[in-house]
Amino acid sequence: MAKTKYVYLFSEGNANMRNLLGGKGANLAEMTNIGLPVPQGFTVSTEACSKYYEDGQILSDDVVKQIMDGLSKVEKITGKKFGDKNNPLLVSVRSGARASMPGMMDTILNLGLNSEVVEGLVKLTNNPRFAYDSYRRFIQMFSDVALGLEKSNFEKIIDKMKEEKGVKLDTELDAEDLKEMVKRFKALFKKEMKYDFPEDPKMQLLEAVKAVFRSWENPRAIYYRRVNDIPSSWGTAVNVQSMVFGNMGEQSGTGVAFTRDPATGEKKLYGEYLMNAQGEDVVAGIRTPQPISHLEEQNKALYDQFVAIANKLEKHYRDMQDMEFTIENGKLYMLQTRNGKRTAKAALKIAVDLVKEGMLSEKEALLKLEPKQLDALLHPQFDQDALKKAKPIGKALPASPGAASGIIAFTAERAIELHGQGKKVVLVRLETSPEDIEGMAASEGILTARGGRTSHAAVVARGMGTACVAGCQELLVDEEGKKFTLGGKTYKEGDPISIDGSTGFIYGESVKTVPASISGDFGTIMAWADKYRALQVRANADTPQDAKTAFNFGAEGIGLCRTEHMFFDADRIPAVREMIVSKTVEERKRALKKLLPMQKKDFIGLYKAMQGKPVTIRFLDPPLHEFLPHEDEEIKALAKEMGLSFGELKATVEGLREVNPMMGHRGLRLAITYPEIAEMQTKAVIEAAIKVKEEKGYEIVPEIMIPLTCDSKEFNFVRDIVARVADEIIAQKGVKLTYKIGTMIEIPRAALTADEVAKTAEFFSFGTNDLTQMTYGFSRDDAGKFLDIYYERKIFENDPFAKLDQNGVGKLVKMAADLGKQTRKDIKLGICGEHGGDPSSVEFCHDIGLTYVSCSPYRVPIARLAAAQANIKNPRK
Amino acid sequence: MAKTKYVYLFSEGNANMRNLLGGKGANLAEMTNIGLPVPQGFTVSTEACSKYYEDGQILSDDVVKQIMDGLSKVEKITGKKFGDKNNPLLVSVRSGARASMPGMMDTILNLGLNSEVVEGLVKLTNNPRFAYDSYRRFIQMFSDVALGLEKSNFEKIIDKMKEEKGVKLDTELDAEDLKEMVKRFKALFKKEMKYDFPEDPKMQLLEAVKAVFRSWENPRAIYYRRVNDIPSSWGTAVNVQSMVFGNMGEQSGTGVAFTRDPATGEKKLYGEYLMNAQGEDVVAGIRTPQPISHLEEQNKALYDQFVAIANKLEKHYRDMQDMEFTIENGKLYMLQTRNGKRTAKAALKIAVDLVKEGMLSEKEALLKLEPKQLDALLHPQFDQDALKKAKPIGKALPASPGAASGIIAFTAERAIELHGQGKKVVLVRLETSPEDIEGMAASEGILTARGGRTSHAAVVARGMGTACVAGCQELLVDEEGKKFTLGGKTYKEGDPISIDGSTGFIYGESVKTVPASISGDFGTIMAWADKYRALQVRANADTPQDAKTAFNFGAEGIGLCRTEHMFFDADRIPAVREMIVSKTVEERKRALKKLLPMQKKDFIGLYKAMQGKPVTIRFLDPPLHEFLPHEDEEIKALAKEMGLSFGELKATVEGLREVNPMMGHRGLRLAITYPEIAEMQTKAVIEAAIKVKEEKGYEIVPEIMIPLTCDSKEFNFVRDIVARVADEIIAQKGVKLTYKIGTMIEIPRAALTADEVAKTAEFFSFGTNDLTQMTYGFSRDDAGKFLDIYYERKIFENDPFAKLDQNGVGKLVKMAADLGKQTRKDIKLGICGEHGGDPSSVEFCHDIGLTYVSCSPYRVPIARLAAAQANIKNPRK
Repeated sequence: MAKTKYVYLFSEGNANMRNLLGGKGANLAEMTNIGLPVPQGFTVSTEACSKYYEDGQILSDDVVKQIMDGLSKVEKITGKKFGDKNNPLLVSVRSGARASMPGMMDTILNLGLNSEVVEGLVKLTNNPRFAYDSYRRFIQMFSDVALGLEKSNFEKIIDKMKEEKGVKLDTELDAEDLKEMVKRFKALFKKEMKYDFPEDPKMQLLEAVKAVFRSWENPRAIYYRRVNDIPSSWGTAVNVQSMVFGNMGEQSGTGVAFTRDPATGEKKLYGEYLMNAQGEDVVAGIRTPQPISHLEEQNKALYDQFVAIANKLEKHYRDMQDMEFTIENGKLYMLQTRNGKRTAKAALKIAVDLVKEGMLSEKEALLKLEPKQLDALLHPQFDQDALKKAKPIGKALPASPGAASGIIAFTAERAIELHGQGKKVVLVRLETSPEDIEGMAASEGILTARGGRTSHAAVVARGMGTACVAGCQELLVDEEGKKFTLGGKTYKEGDPISIDGSTGFIYGESVKTVPASISGDFGTIMAWADKYRALQVRANADTPQDAKTAFNFGAEGIGLCRTEHMFFDADRIPAVREMIVSKTVEERKRALKKLLPMQKKDFIGLYKAMQGKPVTIRFLDPPLHEFLPHEDEEIKALAKEMGLSFGELKATVEGLREVNPMMGHRGLRLAITYPEIAEMQTKAVIEAAIKVKEEKGYEIVPEIMIPLTCDSKEFNFVRDIVARVADEIIAQKGVKLTYKIGTMIEIPRAALTADEVAKTAEFFSFGTNDLTQMTYGFSRDDAGKFLDIYYERKIFENDPFAKLDQNGVGKLVKMAADLGKQTRKDIKLGICGEHGGDPSSVEFCHDIGLTYVSCSPYRVPIARLAAAQANIKNPRK
Repeated sequence: MAKTKYVYLFSEGNANMRNLLGGKGANLAEMTNIGLPVPQGFTVSTEACSKYYEDGQILSDDVVKQIMDGLSKVEKITGKKFGDKNNPLLVSVRSGARASMPGMMDTILNLGLNSEVVEGLVKLTNNPRFAYDSYRRFIQMFSDVALGLEKSNFEKIIDKMKEEKGVKLDTELDAEDLKEMVKRFKALFKKEMKYDFPEDPKMQLLEAVKAVFRSWENPRAIYYRRVNDIPSSWGTAVNVQSMVFGNMGEQSGTGVAFTRDPATGEKKLYGEYLMNAQGEDVVAGIRTPQPISHLEEQNKALYDQFVAIANKLEKHYRDMQDMEFTIENGKLYMLQTRNGKRTAKAALKIAVDLVKEGMLSEKEALLKLEPKQLDALLHPQFDQDALKKAKPIGKALPASPGAASGIIAFTAERAIELHGQGKKVVLVRLETSPEDIEGMAASEGILTARGGRTSHAAVVARGMGTACVAGCQELLVDEEGKKFTLGGKTYKEGDPISIDGSTGFIYGESVKTVPASISGDFGTIMAWADKYRALQVRANADTPQDAKTAFNFGAEGIGLCRTEHMFFDADRIPAVREMIVSKTVEERKRALKKLLPMQKKDFIGLYKAMQGKPVTIRFLDPPLHEFLPHEDEEIKALAKEMGLSFGELKATVEGLREVNPMMGHRGLRLAITYPEIAEMQTKAVIEAAIKVKEEKGYEIVPEIMIPLTCDSKEFNFVRDIVARVADEIIAQKGVKLTYKIGTMIEIPRAALTADEVAKTAEFFSFGTNDLTQMTYGFSRDDAGKFLDIYYERKIFENDPFAKLDQNGVGKLVKMAADLGKQTRKDIKLGICGEHGGDPSSVEFCHDIGLTYVSCSPYRVPIARLAAAQANIKNPRK
């Protein structure tokens, strides 16, 4: 059997080998192939990572040997020797997964240094400060990444030394100081680890490779994968690359740049660099870098060379590129290129521009977009009137667009906590770090004092579609004291604040936000999406307001109107409660009579908002106890209000209590027990339709949806009631009106017997929220307690409530769709769970032949794009 | 199109037309064909019944015409004329469904009488007493059955007249009295109905037919069908038969008889008759009838004729017959024959005897048995020692075998209520009526003061397998005062009582009962069943005691041992609770260490009881809060006991509270959160197996069953823990031991992904209780509130928790079985829900190719027989 190849020189790979070499490795190989100046090295493949885990977290002899072979070849290419004090080869060791996971995994620079080599480096560069700066950085990174020593212990030594020397910046420490620092670092290492810092460069290399492999399973990476749907089985590759040094003096530097503006999409080189620094200094945002345009003034030739490379890369990859470069003693090296992350706005503009520039077809452009990212554009903006009255208290970098208003939190934990209490939060930090990622996700917006638009906070916020204003240097944050000062005023935790991630303005008050709209590039993209998609997109909307939003976002109908939401209104709940406590059918009918005109009004509003597009109305679903209070005090108050005795009302509440309300007396079970409720709702639906049809001339075809069916006879029982009442009204009014009666498919048995149900049901709508709960056998309310452990232990890699489980739940959905079509060829099939707005689930719905997806109004554009992508990939006949 | 034939003369039908003519109609036709003396008539078919309901409860012209045609033909055959005062034809109108439903539907006798015809009858028979007795009976029955007038109103008139006349028995009233009674009955009719009692016999007939059709949907009939799995779509036929009169004087009579003793199976004519009476008098048990043997003395010729007919019928039907006959002025008429209901004991003896007599093959004999009926033999008998000390307070007819001990209830409602409180009840009644059927089902035993062994109480109790002692004339029941006197002592509601339905003895105290055993005919039948079945039968058993019972009943292994039941023992629950409140893994392990020897001991007991047969042990399943108290007072007490603060323990209890516990943190979810629990249980299972193997030499292969799997990765996580611990122990002890690890399939997703799960699961056991809940989306705890309405409205005809829903849940089971076998050809497939003991579900399990069913120990023989029947009907290759 041929031996598996685990190690590839950059010259042996190419851009198509992303699965094996990871994104970074594949692109380093591609750049090498097209003749760009890339420091040479090799990639240890993702297969080696899988093998590492399979072998019980050891590097097999085979892999070790191939790494050593790779090292020898790089030595030959570079003419340097690993561990040689006269002409030492130093390397960086970086992770590189198939999908970009910025900042999630570990990197070690300057590897290959030891006490002898560092002296060689001093001689070679005649720059002892550089040599010892590199060495101390290496010790710190290696100890942290490979051996898990707390980074802050090293930071404390640095702080102490700066204090001793009376300086403020690291750069103010001289070579002797750094030499001393290396001594103290090694002492710390020995104290903590009980052995000396490793001198053997090869041992350092192997430990570093293992550390990168291990970092694939650190909690940040696991969380990031879960949020971004990346399977844990992919693993990461490791790139071992000969070092070039941006910190070799004032003729050296390092930077990152994009071929187009990642915030706006504007076609111009965009980026930042720092002289006499290593790459990590730029990303970490500790020193504030220069804009890339400044390089033109500093070194025109080098700038022109870089621009040429950037253009070449963009044409080569047919997409906007995000590049890292280093200048070592005046020579330019490319360290990385990849398709650049961008804001949603930029993504749309770039896609439209690339089509205009003839670089992409419309279909290709659509496929380049990440539907979920549109979310950012669909988030609220400030209300223009409110904004006029608001006075900014500061301004900083507009790092991730969208407006956010909330109360201040100073830690990720606190943000999560307040968010959990239903509060809107703006997270205010000196700078963010990967540990903060969950807290950032829980926040409406993020404000940082340090870092540029490529800082951690900015990159992550853009990825999340969360508003971010970054690098506000006037912002004096006292994280421990839980307060900050800005514009001469002090703000405490819990105070209101607003930020505009598109302008960078900060407001020390709450500012009203309004929803976004579709226009410009967004409109162009949506028009293309509609041109290429086969799946219809509807919205879940319970109010005329929601319906209008949905209509404006291009919804082709309402897929789910939850009528019970209308019951909770303050002016209605008394009648609802009256109905619940009724002792006879007559009493109940009397209460329902009060509700009828209200329900009718709701439906009139919905029909008008949708201008004749189909509206699916789901009948009362929740168990009745949801409409009653449960605490004695509240029951007492309500009893008084309703003219009942406490005992009576308490008995009603107790009688309605359920052991498992999720699987209790709800859905059409209510209509079977109290047919008069279904009768009232039918009246409201039909009478409203007749009225709006007469008034506006819309051809309304109301779709009445019966929830929670588990059996065809059960469905028929309710269907017959609805049809009887509807037909009576239509006959009585002497009008022509068509209506449809269908059902939710949200209980496994309904899916299993869908052929029977379809005999009378004119449409199915998959309620994948409940269907997921029943199919998995866990309740969403309770699963939180154990699902975290499932994620942690990698039993689940996705939240099945966010991404449709295609193996289990999806199998039922497909089965029901097929069975339904068997019985009724033209059956309308939709989905109205939260999955309706999830792109991968939309693709699944397209693939199994559903008619439409229905999602929240704000996700309609996402679903439209996802549907187009699905049809481009797998065209429907 | 040829017209549908709705009406069949008896001479036009035969025994094979049961579906169309009902059981009674088909057998009347068959008897006519083989030349027996049957009063002629016709049957209105079950199709006419369906049509009646389809047409909106009217008799179509077509059906009416065919009935009138039938009537004319019967007039020709009998030479009598309907409504003719000189030679009147009177008829009985009786229901007759495809399956026997004794007493569930309505009957009208003597139809065709009016004020003219009755006078004709007086002249014709010269027996005015007979004529008016018939007429008053007819008015009463017709008013009650066809028009819904309360029967008791008529009874009151009779009682009043007896009082006026100073007599006690109906028979003591003379012709004039009965004529007066007719007058009063008609006055009552007019007062209630506002019109005169109908004089037109044809109108009477059509109303009567409709009344019988309607009675198919009375609540008793619906309930009976549900309990006996009879579909409502079958409908009932109506038999219109010319009357013969058992009440025409002392040369007339009526009776019922069996070809063999329905209680013991003994081969001898067995029955009762009453002279000068109509059939209803015997069944109602108002007068005490004579044994059939007495007829031989009274009228040898007639007796011999009857014996010859009985033998002919038994040979003809190859089964024990239950016959009704009437003697009219010394002439014998057969009114009905059917396969006789019998006790389980009799059923077994008859089956064995018929094989011995060469009438049936073993397979045929097995198919004649109703597996559910064996239940009666598997019910407890009195403990012999306890019985020696007990003193009977009375003795009556041993009407349905088995011993019962419980507290006294005087009404069906009270019996249901006390049963609901978990109490064992003996229902004591003057006599029972069809309205009592639910209360009878809720009782351990039934004791009546009136009626024979063919009375309602006796027939129903035998059908249910409930102990019954009937016709205890010394029993003075004061139903209103809720007490009775017997043997000079008064007993009140709630007092203990015991009855022996096999001997007829009554004990005024609680007497210990013991389980039954298999021997004699039962043993023979079980041996035949084992010879012909393919499906294995195991038992659900949690204790060595249960296991022993199961072993004695022929269980081939334990299919489900619920380990948590062992945790509730008073000496264990402290350690269980200690484990639950543990704050660290170490604390939890310490508590588990205390449980280990106890669990080990349990398993040793189980292995020993099963003597080497397989034992499937399910790991901890219920949510942990089930082991803690929930009321503040109890929490306080426990906190003190455990040395915790109230607040601490209360917080733990609150923390464990769940919204939908059924879908919460339970099953293998516990093992994933607390692997140490699974580790402890594995240790106990494996160490116990090693010990018993060494001690007894049994080749034990423990089967460890992981509950609540929904995903293969989830299963694998726990499987790996179990395998690691098991292998460690086996290696450490240096023994050879094989074990299997499998899973429950009780969550829809596990069934849907069974191919994946079977990659590592060595067996599946279908937990059809939970699977039914999840598949239907209702919780058993809550469904009670609405399922009654489902039954009432005929949405459900069976309890899906009692009879496996083959369309939905069964589809999932079959799918999982097929997927499992795809991956693992030799996978063991079992079922361990309550359905495992339900015969129709056992048949389904056989048909889809499961390896075994597992049921409660007492149902093992039922499952063995059902499995044999399934394999005889559909032999497995």
